[in-house]
Amino acid sequence: MKFTINRNQFINQINNVQRAISAKTTIPILTGMKLVATDKGLLVTGSDVDISVQNLIEQQDADNDLTIESTGAIVLPARFFNDIIKKLPGEQFTLEIIENNQTLITSGNSEFTLNGLDANNYPHLPEVETNDQLTISAEILHQLVSETVFSASTQENRPILTGLHLKISGNELLAVATDSHRLAQRKVTITNQNQNEYDLVIPAKSLTELVRSFSDRDQDVKISISENQILFEFSNTLFYSRLLEGNYPATDRLIPNESTTQLEFDAKSLLASVERASLLAHASRNNVVRLVIEVATKKAIIYGNSPEVGTVEEVLQPTNISGEDLEISFNPDYLKDALRAFGDTKIQLEFTAALHPFTLKPISNAENFIQLITPVRTF
Amino acid sequence: MKFTINRNQFINQINNVQRAISAKTTIPILTGMKLVATDKGLLVTGSDVDISVQNLIEQQDADNDLTIESTGAIVLPARFFNDIIKKLPGEQFTLEIIENNQTLITSGNSEFTLNGLDANNYPHLPEVETNDQLTISAEILHQLVSETVFSASTQENRPILTGLHLKISGNELLAVATDSHRLAQRKVTITNQNQNEYDLVIPAKSLTELVRSFSDRDQDVKISISENQILFEFSNTLFYSRLLEGNYPATDRLIPNESTTQLEFDAKSLLASVERASLLAHASRNNVVRLVIEVATKKAIIYGNSPEVGTVEEVLQPTNISGEDLEISFNPDYLKDALRAFGDTKIQLEFTAALHPFTLKPISNAENFIQLITPVRTF
Repeated sequence: MKFTINRNQFINQINNVQRAISAKTTIPILTGMKLVATDKGLLVTGSDVDISVQNLIEQQDADNDLTIESTGAIVLPARFFNDIIKKLPGEQFTLEIIENNQTLITSGNSEFTLNGLDANNYPHLPEVETNDQLTISAEILHQLVSETVFSASTQENRPILTGLHLKISGNELLAVATDSHRLAQRKVTITNQNQNEYDLVIPAKSLTELVRSFSDRDQDVKISISENQILFEFSNTLFYSRLLEGNYPATDRLIPNESTTQLEFDAKSLLASVERASLLAHASRNNVVRLVIEVATKKAIIYGNSPEVGTVEEVLQPTNISGEDLEISFNPDYLKDALRAFGDTKIQLEFTAALHPFTLKPISNAENFIQLITPVRTF
Repeated sequence: MKFTINRNQFINQINNVQRAISAKTTIPILTGMKLVATDKGLLVTGSDVDISVQNLIEQQDADNDLTIESTGAIVLPARFFNDIIKKLPGEQFTLEIIENNQTLITSGNSEFTLNGLDANNYPHLPEVETNDQLTISAEILHQLVSETVFSASTQENRPILTGLHLKISGNELLAVATDSHRLAQRKVTITNQNQNEYDLVIPAKSLTELVRSFSDRDQDVKISISENQILFEFSNTLFYSRLLEGNYPATDRLIPNESTTQLEFDAKSLLASVERASLLAHASRNNVVRLVIEVATKKAIIYGNSPEVGTVEEVLQPTNISGEDLEISFNPDYLKDALRAFGDTKIQLEFTAALHPFTLKPISNAENFIQLITPVRTF
């Protein structure tokens, strides 16, 4: 194997692959990056078992300045290889296998010899049938993930909750994440050519990594699903993730149908208030803020306190307030995450009782996006 | 005590004070920031015992928008106080001691009550006689420190080496830092009104913090020195540091007077080559690169290797080469630090033997700036 390539193009195009590779893996060859030179171009692969990413650097793309003198394959130590390529002096570099998997990398006056591994020992990529594909725009997928994924659990005691639950029926996709203290649910419309139904749970970490890989959100992502794997195709990238096994808990019944107290806010202004209140809540062991709603006087006040440091209170600025008086306590971090997901928009908060979950919805899209937070008992 | 002040001005002006305060101190009151409201303005103090910083926020400066309704003093928990001020909603805030050192901070609809401490229990600032002062521009002081301080030791086994040694005689200031493996020495001209002689060792950490505090390098810094303290005055800031006790080792005799091999380089291009060579040196346990100089062929080649990962070699681009052939091994990180301190300039490397220290000097200022690196025995 021997090829020459534009260095910056190479760096940009292995970025996604590099991120899939973990230094912590227990399978030594997976600390490496697999390079395969073919007639079409250079296939670059990285994997941490859960996620595998393969990128094709095309010979026909003139920007790559890719000349393949001979085909072949090698696995190189990913961290060093990456550091070396980034620091090489020339605009291009040449990579050549010399003998015993030793690989010579030259650029300008610099000459590196890296100890590679036999590419035949690299695990095969998962097999996923690509006959039935769904199509979602990268933009929608990015939005869907960033609006829900923070509610997934980061604890491994209930592994299924570390994933995002996707239910696809017709052209409707429903995404739910919950760590059992809070929940985010989002509905979007997709193109489902064969109208197949799907019910699957994708690790939240995979999705976070996936949407980070979109260099361009103005493109379609093709999705193929098998028994225990999902494949996302976009640009010249194949992004595989394992699926989580097991049944996701039923979450429909958690979302209340009616409410007794309603507040409307600008999400950004409420976020600023909660951030202030949480400063002192964080200093205390239980990390709780208290919201007191007095409908008659149209007042909503948030309180935080830490016995050691002090107290905070702030009169909130709801744009509307209705229903019954209420006093409710909750973890301010859940509310902050929820409000950040809404961005700069008007939202509605709906409460039923001091110990019942409350919901947040964007006023303009209340049927498609809902967040739920379970309060904390403080007495 | 009660005052109202512009929030952003306050944040900017307590920045230096905040950085002097350490959360790790064993003296609880030093986790606090001392605020004293006087007729002139607001005196803000922070200290970690080694460094103490005091800033005067002047009432007469209209930008501060400072109104002092009543004078007084308080010590507030620095980290929380800082976080709170940064997140307050209003352009201004009001701070008032209510009772038992409880302090009320209000801004917009936000109201914080912080548990303060009695300012009478805050340690006094060191006493430093300010009759005999030296004057150095902030620019020169910044340069002097960044060109030398990285060579000071970070190990506490020889505390004196964690400092920068300053010798002032007439209008000449000589600064030396060494961790016993490498050394940096810089000479500059200063204004020493009384022509007093000084010989002192300032903790490197204090100096790094000091030069970070210069919001403006185009100003004079007045320096006063006492038995065990040094005081730097600039803008509205007093910056105190303790001095290190003990005798600094004699370093003059370490610097060789003659050399047998000489190389000239662009510092930046040599730095890039050493960075590449060090990639593999870092992967190996001994972290050493080898430089081979062949004067007849005008060649200098740098080698790095890690038995596990691979090897690197690079033909360097000296702009001049003279003297005798040489092969020498050293820690590439010392050379990288030295080259970064030179910036973008032409430098001279001078060697005497494989096991003797070698020196680096900027060609345009060789008598005032010298760095020395001790090689490593590899056989």
